Amino acid sequence: MTRIRIITAYDGTDFSGFQKLPGKRTVEGELSRAISELCGEEIGIIGASRTDSGVHALGNVAVFDTSSSIPPERMALAINTRLPRDLRVLASESCEADWHPRKHASIKTYEYRIYNGRIEDPLGRRYRSFCPYSLDVEAMDRALKALVGTHDFTSFANPASQVLQRGGDAIRTIHEAGISRLSEGGFGGGAGELCIRISGSGFLYNMVRIIAGTVMEAGTGARRPEDMEEILRARDRRSAGMTAEARGLFLRSIVYTEERQGPADHPKEKDI
Amino acid sequence: MTRIRIITAYDGTDFSGFQKLPGKRTVEGELSRAISELCGEEIGIIGASRTDSGVHALGNVAVFDTSSSIPPERMALAINTRLPRDLRVLASESCEADWHPRKHASIKTYEYRIYNGRIEDPLGRRYRSFCPYSLDVEAMDRALKALVGTHDFTSFANPASQVLQRGGDAIRTIHEAGISRLSEGGFGGGAGELCIRISGSGFLYNMVRIIAGTVMEAGTGARRPEDMEEILRARDRRSAGMTAEARGLFLRSIVYTEERQGPADHPKEKDI
Repeated sequence: MTRIRIITAYDGTDFSGFQKLPGKRTVEGELSRAISELCGEEIGIIGASRTDSGVHALGNVAVFDTSSSIPPERMALAINTRLPRDLRVLASESCEADWHPRKHASIKTYEYRIYNGRIEDPLGRRYRSFCPYSLDVEAMDRALKALVGTHDFTSFANPASQVLQRGGDAIRTIHEAGISRLSEGGFGGGAGELCIRISGSGFLYNMVRIIAGTVMEAGTGARRPEDMEEILRARDRRSAGMTAEARGLFLRSIVYTEERQGPADHPKEKDI
Repeated sequence: MTRIRIITAYDGTDFSGFQKLPGKRTVEGELSRAISELCGEEIGIIGASRTDSGVHALGNVAVFDTSSSIPPERMALAINTRLPRDLRVLASESCEADWHPRKHASIKTYEYRIYNGRIEDPLGRRYRSFCPYSLDVEAMDRALKALVGTHDFTSFANPASQVLQRGGDAIRTIHEAGISRLSEGGFGGGAGELCIRISGSGFLYNMVRIIAGTVMEAGTGARRPEDMEEILRARDRRSAGMTAEARGLFLRSIVYTEERQGPADHPKEKDI
């Protein structure tokens, strides 16, 4: 048996998320079907990030074990011939038999894209959330910067988080956070396409979407950037803003930073 | 009656083109339905560019006549509330009662977007055509530059062009043409997102898509950039390359350059 590591990209719009669900079209379901067909054996997939329904990925990671003799580096192109067009394997390689995509320290980078205009861009509606109100981009950047560092992110997590439900803590580290403009103005006014980018050691359930929703409220003036510290301190989901729509969220990349930790040394469990 | 001029943007993927067709979902059909509902009267639309099935627009122009008392500038937002999300009216204003979007001299700008990578980007597949072969972007630019000026474009027109069928000539002026990179590299290699941009006084049926297909052949090395002059001289559709897919084509803008010409002085009829 060989363990193969793959990097995947997908348009989340028409998937019911990553994780296999009976009767639903999921990324894991499509991958395991395609790879099982290709290898002629039943293949199980272990994904790094179980993205929600509607969330996109440009660099999710997964592994599977196979006895196929197809060279590991050729797997990507061979799998793609059996996948729908909204899901691609970007690269494949062999890895150690005990390498696990959720049990190694990593830095995940997410992007949250917003279209800020008076009228929505009909060509971006699958990949950006829409905000028709005037946004202070500089205030949004300051709100994001207030989250950098190691904090208890209970206020920015969905209380249904499996990690929190099992008694895990909400302490996470955000390495970088900021916002940039990707276009020069929106239809009818506004800032155009904005991109929030957040890198961190791990994220709780809905954490990036709740951060994006709260930061948008800092952009409209409904909150002040300085309020972010108080929201963190409250450790209460109700103190933060709305959960921003799934369609603006992209898992951009996962970079593994360390060798596997010993079996007795479980790294922090991750929701996404 | 007031004549209202509107600018529209749409994702062409799920439309059977601009022009009304019985039983088909078209841009004109959706616009006339929405505006008729809003104004409470039967509204007919005159469009500037009758884009093909699958072709996108960021700045198509149209007019309609109405006796509604809604202020012309407010029409855009009011119409949008009755349109599907893949079609938006970006602006509205009143214009002279005899102003006609196809009967005035204009400069139209089209973009043709290509994703050049070994593996297709699943998030761009609705808006870019895919080329997995290595492309020489500089050769493509030289091929495009060879088309700038006033030429007989018979070789780059679909012979089913209504203008040509009616005996019209194929002499058109391209003011600018070039190609730019919009990203740094594609998945698995390649140039990433490329954008061909062409501005001209008028375009024949499928002309931009045939130019894009021929220029891609110059990019792969199947043709030389210097061949473009010979293709023009041949005045034969068979001398040019393939018709590139509709999904990469965007009508970017239409700029009207002159006042309406007198009734006896018909400007050149336009296919698109």
